[in-house]
Amino acid sequence: MSDILNQLAEVLEQRRQADPDSSYVASLHRKGLNKILEKVGEEATETLLAAKDAANGSEKNREAVVAETADLWFHSLVMLSHLGIDHQDVLDELARRFGISGLDEKAARPTDA
Amino acid sequence: MSDILNQLAEVLEQRRQADPDSSYVASLHRKGLNKILEKVGEEATETLLAAKDAANGSEKNREAVVAETADLWFHSLVMLSHLGIDHQDVLDELARRFGISGLDEKAARPTDA
Amino acid sequence: MSDILNQLAEVLEQRRQADPDSSYVASLHRKGLNKILEKVGEEATETLLAAKDAANGSEKNREAVVAETADLWFHSLVMLSHLGIDHQDVLDELARRFGISGLDEKAARPTDA
Amino acid sequence: MSDILNQLAEVLEQRRQADPDSSYVASLHRKGLNKILEKVGEEATETLLAAKDAANGSEKNREAVVAETADLWFHSLVMLSHLGIDHQDVLDELARRFGISGLDEKAARPTDA
Repeated sequence: MSDILNQLAEVLEQRRQADPDSSYVASLHRKGLNKILEKVGEEATETLLAAKDAANGSEKNREAVVAETADLWFHSLVMLSHLGIDHQDVLDELARRFGISGLDEKAARPTDA
Repeated sequence: MSDILNQLAEVLEQRRQADPDSSYVASLHRKGLNKILEKVGEEATETLLAAKDAANGSEKNREAVVAETADLWFHSLVMLSHLGIDHQDVLDELARRFGISGLDEKAARPTDA
Repeated sequence: MSDILNQLAEVLEQRRQADPDSSYVASLHRKGLNKILEKVGEEATETLLAAKDAANGSEKNREAVVAETADLWFHSLVMLSHLGIDHQDVLDELARRFGISGLDEKAARPTDA
Repeated sequence: MSDILNQLAEVLEQRRQADPDSSYVASLHRKGLNKILEKVGEEATETLLAAKDAANGSEKNREAVVAETADLWFHSLVMLSHLGIDHQDVLDELARRFGISGLDEKAARPTDA
C-alpha cells in the first residue's frame, strides 16, 4: 500500500538511521523517548490553541490547525517508531473499531460507535 | 483513494449526521469544540503514560500505546471535521514536508527534514 | 505556617488514609499514579480551554479559569503526595528562583528571572 | 499575608512591568496568552514524564518532579496575571472546597471531598 501515512512511516524509518546532526528525526531518536513525548504533548497543546483560534477566526488560523495537527501526527509516528510499534497496528485498530476493511475492495461498513 | 484514514474520515462525516443518542461521534459534535478538544488533550496524556509504561514493559503496555494512539488520531479527526477542515490537508502538509507524493506512482523522495 | 496551600496539603495527607469509597482523594491514591497523572493532564487541558474562552469573554469564563486552575493545583498536590514529595519543596524551589524568603520578616527580593 | 505563593504573585506583577529583554516574565506577557498557555501545557507534560520516572527511580528524578511542578505553578500564575485574575481567588476556591479557612486562627475542617 502506498498512501501518504504509510510512505511517511517508511521515510521515518529511513531517517532514524540518518546522521542526527543533519536529520531532525534521527536527533529525536538520539535524545530519547522523553524528548519525543515532550514534543507529542507540546504539539497537542498547540493543536488545541490553534483550534480555539480557528473557531473564532480567519483562514490563517485554519492553516495553523492543519500545520499543528501534522506536527502532532508526525511526532506520534516517531514515538511509535521509537517503541518499535508498527503504525499499521494503529490504523488496523481504527479499522476494526469502525468496521472498515483495510482492503480496497471492501466498502466502509459503519458500526454504531 | 481508499486507505483506512480516508475511509475513517468518510465514516466520521456520516456519523456526524447521526442521532447523538446512538452515535458517540454525533454526541461529540453536539457537545461542541471544547469537549472534542478536551478529548484530544486527554488522549494525548494517556498516550504519553502508555508510552512510558511500554518503555519499561510488557506486551500489554504496547497494546495500550496502539489503543491510545488510535484514540488520539480518532479524536483529532473529529476535531478537523468539526472545524470543517479536510483531513487530506493534513496528509498533504505531511507529504509536502517530507517530499512524499500523494500519487501512487511516485516513490517517496526523502528530504533532509 | 498556615496559609491555604499548606493547610490543603495537610488535609490531603489526612484524606489519603480515608476510605476510598467516601473520599475522592483516597480513591485517586488507590487507583494509582497513572490515574492521578491523567487528571493532571486533563485539568491542564481544561485550564487552557477556559483561559482561551476568558480571553474572549465573559465573567463566567473567568470563574471557569479559577475553578480549572484550582483543579490543576489540587491534582498536582495529590501527585506530590502520592510520590511522597513534600509540596514545600516546590514552594522552596520557587522562593529560591525568585529570591523570595520563605520567612515572613524578609521582603521579596526580585531577581531578574 | 506573606506566604511564598503570595510573595511570588507580587513579584510576578512587578516583573510584568519590566523590560521584556531582561525579564522572562515580561517577555511572556509580550508574547501573549497563547505563548503562556503553550508553556503551561509544556510544563504539565514535563511534570507527567518526571513523575513517571520518579515512580521507577532515583532521587534525581524526584528533584525533577519538584522542578517541573514549580515550572507548572509558576506559568499558571503568569497566566492568571495575564488574564487579570487574582491568584488568591484560586486559593479561596481550594479553601472553600476543602473547608479550610483562609484565616490563621481557624483550623482546617475537612469535608468529604
